[in-house]
Amino acid sequence: MPNLDTAFSALADPIRRAILARLASGEATVMELAEPFEVTQPAISRHLKVLESAGLIIRRVDGTKRPCRLAPAGIDAVDRWLAMLREALAKNYDRLDEVLAVMKSEERKDVP
Amino acid sequence: MPNLDTAFSALADPIRRAILARLASGEATVMELAEPFEVTQPAISRHLKVLESAGLIIRRVDGTKRPCRLAPAGIDAVDRWLAMLREALAKNYDRLDEVLAVMKSEERKDVP
Repeated sequence: MPNLDTAFSALADPIRRAILARLASGEATVMELAEPFEVTQPAISRHLKVLESAGLIIRRVDGTKRPCRLAPAGIDAVDRWLAMLREALAKNYDRLDEVLAVMKSEERKDVP
Repeated sequence: MPNLDTAFSALADPIRRAILARLASGEATVMELAEPFEVTQPAISRHLKVLESAGLIIRRVDGTKRPCRLAPAGIDAVDRWLAMLREALAKNYDRLDEVLAVMKSEERKDVP
C-alpha cells in the first residue's frame, strides 16, 4: 500500500513532476531523463530515488542501465484519493445545475 | 492559477487530507473541523491557512465564523495534472489488452 504522505510530498517538486510527465510517454533511462533539464545526472538520480520510494516509479535492471517507468499502483492510490474530492465537486455542480434549472422553469411560469 | 508545488505539498499531510475529506461532504467551521481530531483549534487553523494559501479551500465570513469549503479551481488544477498520468497508464493497459487479445486469437488458431 503506497504511502500518500510520501507520494504527495514527492509530487510537490516541479522537476519530479516533469520526470513523471516524461515517463507518461514511456520508459526512460537516467541519461534520457537528465537531458531536457539543466540538472546533473546525480541530481536526477536523487529525484528518481524519491519517486521510487514514494511508489510512483519502478526501475528495472537492463545491463548497466536502470530504466524507469510509471508505477501504476502508486499513481492509482493518489488518483483514487483525489477522485473523492473530484466526485464531491461534481455533485456540487449537479446540485447547482438543478437549482438553475428550477429557477429557469420558475421564470418561464412568470411570463404571462 | 494555483501553484502545484504548494498544492501537492499541502496534500502531503494526513490531517490536511482528512480536513479536505470532511469538506467533501460540505462546508464546515473550524470548530466542526477540529472535533474529530486530537488536535487543538489553533493547530487546525494553521492547517487551514496552508490549505487556503495552496488554493485548495475557500473561507467566507459569516458573522464571527469563517466557514471553509473546497476550492474547485485548486482541486481541478491538481486533478488535471494527475489526469495526464492516469491517461498514460490507461493507454498502457489498452495496449496490454490488445496484446492479450492477439495472443488469445493466436492460441485459438493453434487448436487443431
